[in-house]
Amino acid sequence: MLNPASKSPFSTIEYMQTCLKDDLAIVETILTEEAASPVDMIPDLSGYIVAAGGKRLRPMITLAAAYAAGGATSATHYLSAAVEFIHTATLLHDDVVDNSDLRRGKPAAKMVWGNTASVLVGDFLFAKAFHLMVRTGEIKILDILAKASGVIAEGEVRQLAAQGRLDLPTEEYLAIIEAKTAALFEAAAEAGALSAGHAEHSAALASYGKNLGLAFQIVDDTLDYGGTTSLIGKSVGDDFREGKITLPVVIARRRGAPEDRAFWDRAMQVDKQEDSDLAHAIHLIRQTDAAKASMDEAKAYIQLAKNALITLPESEYRILLESLADFCLDRGY
Amino acid sequence: MLNPASKSPFSTIEYMQTCLKDDLAIVETILTEEAASPVDMIPDLSGYIVAAGGKRLRPMITLAAAYAAGGATSATHYLSAAVEFIHTATLLHDDVVDNSDLRRGKPAAKMVWGNTASVLVGDFLFAKAFHLMVRTGEIKILDILAKASGVIAEGEVRQLAAQGRLDLPTEEYLAIIEAKTAALFEAAAEAGALSAGHAEHSAALASYGKNLGLAFQIVDDTLDYGGTTSLIGKSVGDDFREGKITLPVVIARRRGAPEDRAFWDRAMQVDKQEDSDLAHAIHLIRQTDAAKASMDEAKAYIQLAKNALITLPESEYRILLESLADFCLDRGY
Repeated sequence: MLNPASKSPFSTIEYMQTCLKDDLAIVETILTEEAASPVDMIPDLSGYIVAAGGKRLRPMITLAAAYAAGGATSATHYLSAAVEFIHTATLLHDDVVDNSDLRRGKPAAKMVWGNTASVLVGDFLFAKAFHLMVRTGEIKILDILAKASGVIAEGEVRQLAAQGRLDLPTEEYLAIIEAKTAALFEAAAEAGALSAGHAEHSAALASYGKNLGLAFQIVDDTLDYGGTTSLIGKSVGDDFREGKITLPVVIARRRGAPEDRAFWDRAMQVDKQEDSDLAHAIHLIRQTDAAKASMDEAKAYIQLAKNALITLPESEYRILLESLADFCLDRGY
Repeated sequence: MLNPASKSPFSTIEYMQTCLKDDLAIVETILTEEAASPVDMIPDLSGYIVAAGGKRLRPMITLAAAYAAGGATSATHYLSAAVEFIHTATLLHDDVVDNSDLRRGKPAAKMVWGNTASVLVGDFLFAKAFHLMVRTGEIKILDILAKASGVIAEGEVRQLAAQGRLDLPTEEYLAIIEAKTAALFEAAAEAGALSAGHAEHSAALASYGKNLGLAFQIVDDTLDYGGTTSLIGKSVGDDFREGKITLPVVIARRRGAPEDRAFWDRAMQVDKQEDSDLAHAIHLIRQTDAAKASMDEAKAYIQLAKNALITLPESEYRILLESLADFCLDRGY
């Protein structure tokens, strides 16, 4: 059972990894087998990104959802691996898209193998994800994940179109992160329930996943400016350097004085950034309480995620999903 | 029925389009509906590439295969649209990959919308392809297309790894084009038979599709150097300018004198090309009969494709598939 005495957020992930150890080992085997190819560059590159310190958060959500709904099956394992491949393919294509040079703390794959290989190996993993879903034998699971994949791509395009829109309405920001992040969390939890053969719990778990995903992305976006209290623990400023319009920026600009708005309008243009801009951006986000306001927004979604679990039968896996929700929030404070 | 008196290769495609007019209209409607999105950039970009003069060759193969196997169904229409979306997604990602500036005679999408949008909209169309396959309700069709998608990506990576390998064995060239081109033709024809509910004809049609695809790509690669007789009818030199190692180049270099080999070894390096190189490359390909040898190779696959049709019941659609094979070959002479 959980160790509620520990307040370290890391222990939650480690505890989940321990609870789901045997299942995660099966998922790792599937990931390795499916990424195999006689074309050397494919296992080299996909191994690099799949193995690059990923926490396997999405497979854990899938597995825990299946257990909370009634029990994991071999379909759950295939589904968990498929969800991780979709996530990995998205990361590879994001590398190209974002011009980001670091990914999971290592140089982005495209820095090592080139843009071209990142696009093509992403396509390969995406195809393999669908192949794994076929192996679940459940057309309904395929339907959920195929739709989610379309929504994710749509969200990424929507984010691209939002670049430079400093007056982005909060609703549009939320629509973007619901598509690009929450849709996969939602699909993983919903399909997890179906893979357990318990469709009666799929709507509750879908709602859990969606709200968890929304909160997760808001926290991530807030952590990119150091969260509410500390700069330690995560590389800061990636979104800023890419000119990505996120909730803390939108709030800080909305609450700022005219000269602060002028700062944001200039500094969020990648080619007009100066060395001292990131520090000033963090200062403004603190000064306007924009980090706190963002975290309050995340907190509301975490509460919705936990509320969604109420209809599920009591179990240690339901508690695990609750703890995961708390963890996602805690890492932002 | 067919008009065997006409020797113009264009009439075959036009005749197929006429024969399959009603089905193609349904496929077009599906393509338009599925590419719809509230995010403007998606229908703008996908409409641009989907509508950009595509002959709908792969949907026509799918439809004709289904009819030749027994009859098209609504599953055939969804499948045909899915196959076109996979093809279109590959084109969009190829644009990024190849640094090619023209596609289907128009500026490549990435020149208009940027690399980023090409990657993301490609992902969107790929997801939509899987969504359409889910709508066929046939897990076996999903299996075939998911596997083919993986093979296509693998073939593209393999082609990337072959860049600069002037001594590429013919077998490796064939393995690359079998993966990147023939796999989708094969899957389209095989799944076409399944969508008609006639699995007993799927192996024959798979063989037809694979061999047709191999020949199609060899002819395409030969046409890039003007074919055997004429420079007219297709933009020449795209592959050459990208340093792509194709069959006519491999054969011309193998048959060339030492100084010709030295020419190929320099000129196939994109950054070392000079203005007069393309004309000299075409000259060497003619001189060594490399274009003719390539076309002979294509001819052998066309014969295999036609042989594969023998077990099918006699019908006008079987004749249509035979004519299509002849057309694919004829355009190279």
